Amino acid sequence: MATTPLQQQLAFLREIDQLKSVVRQSPLLDRSRRENSAEHSWHLALYALVLAEHAAQAVDVSRVLSMLLLHDIVEIDVGDMPIHGGTSATLQAQQEAVAAERLFGLLPQPQGARLLALWQEFEQAQSADAKFAKALDRLQPLLVNVFTGGGTWTENGVSMEQVIARYGPVIRDGAPSLWAACEPWVAQHFQGQPVSG
Amino acid sequence: MATTPLQQQLAFLREIDQLKSVVRQSPLLDRSRRENSAEHSWHLALYALVLAEHAAQAVDVSRVLSMLLLHDIVEIDVGDMPIHGGTSATLQAQQEAVAAERLFGLLPQPQGARLLALWQEFEQAQSADAKFAKALDRLQPLLVNVFTGGGTWTENGVSMEQVIARYGPVIRDGAPSLWAACEPWVAQHFQGQPVSG
Repeated sequence: MATTPLQQQLAFLREIDQLKSVVRQSPLLDRSRRENSAEHSWHLALYALVLAEHAAQAVDVSRVLSMLLLHDIVEIDVGDMPIHGGTSATLQAQQEAVAAERLFGLLPQPQGARLLALWQEFEQAQSADAKFAKALDRLQPLLVNVFTGGGTWTENGVSMEQVIARYGPVIRDGAPSLWAACEPWVAQHFQGQPVSG
Repeated sequence: MATTPLQQQLAFLREIDQLKSVVRQSPLLDRSRRENSAEHSWHLALYALVLAEHAAQAVDVSRVLSMLLLHDIVEIDVGDMPIHGGTSATLQAQQEAVAAERLFGLLPQPQGARLLALWQEFEQAQSADAKFAKALDRLQPLLVNVFTGGGTWTENGVSMEQVIARYGPVIRDGAPSLWAACEPWVAQHFQGQPVSG
């Protein structure tokens, strides 16, 4: 039983090791296997570090990094829910909120409450930081799909209209110049042309 | 050929996808497989976020996060060089410096130079931020080993004296209270006692 603040912090850090075993639908770019949510979160944090200048509004990169590092840990309890999966958004949000309470509750207070609030801010997607983080969380799998010749779009029979509807608003809202760059790649992909970026 | 700054940034983000395929010696905590360097970097960033109060000196958490997210990307070119592997440190440092020039050189300037400087600061381990980041990079595999009943220490026939010599100074220098917590766990492990933390 974790009793000191440090023991609680290490219990949390041990628990989240399990995110390395949550497998997403998206493949690695070399198509050797599917990506897991821990390495996905690492990649997204680097997206934030490198692409911060493309945010719609000025963002606090440190907060965006923290959000992206934490945003998927609820999947340890509820699994990855794919964008093309048809899961009920309300049910998903309820399950994830319970998971967030459990996981951030492993930490000492007030640290646990502070990180839970950051996770909730990401989920609510209202602040400039959260909107940019959400945009990157849509951008990365979009790029994987265009650069691997279809990826989860091909597997799920997703149309160009569905791609534009499912990715466009979130990316445009948080990073309009990145969506402007993506649009021709999406069009090229659905016209059967290879996309090199 | 990447020509605009955004194309250069995306070329870098695509290139580093390969870090997900660099496999380290350390296992996951459930021992189901070995850890890769991308998910290791994610975990370390969360160590920094959660354990910052334990740094020897005040640190800029944002810089520590950035260092830890970037610190291993050179392994895309040179592979992971295990702490117990006996590789020449000078040769390793030379090869990693060449890899860093190539990888950060994919980015537009001055961004590439700025991130290269951050990587070099981590390697030099002189600043408070770098010392804390280095301490976490030693702490995480130490904890994996004590919590998996030996891990790479057992595989490599590493003694308690070697553990104390290879991990102790770096962890103590960057985070003395974390080393103080580790010492009894290391002793318990080598006395054949299970370590629960």
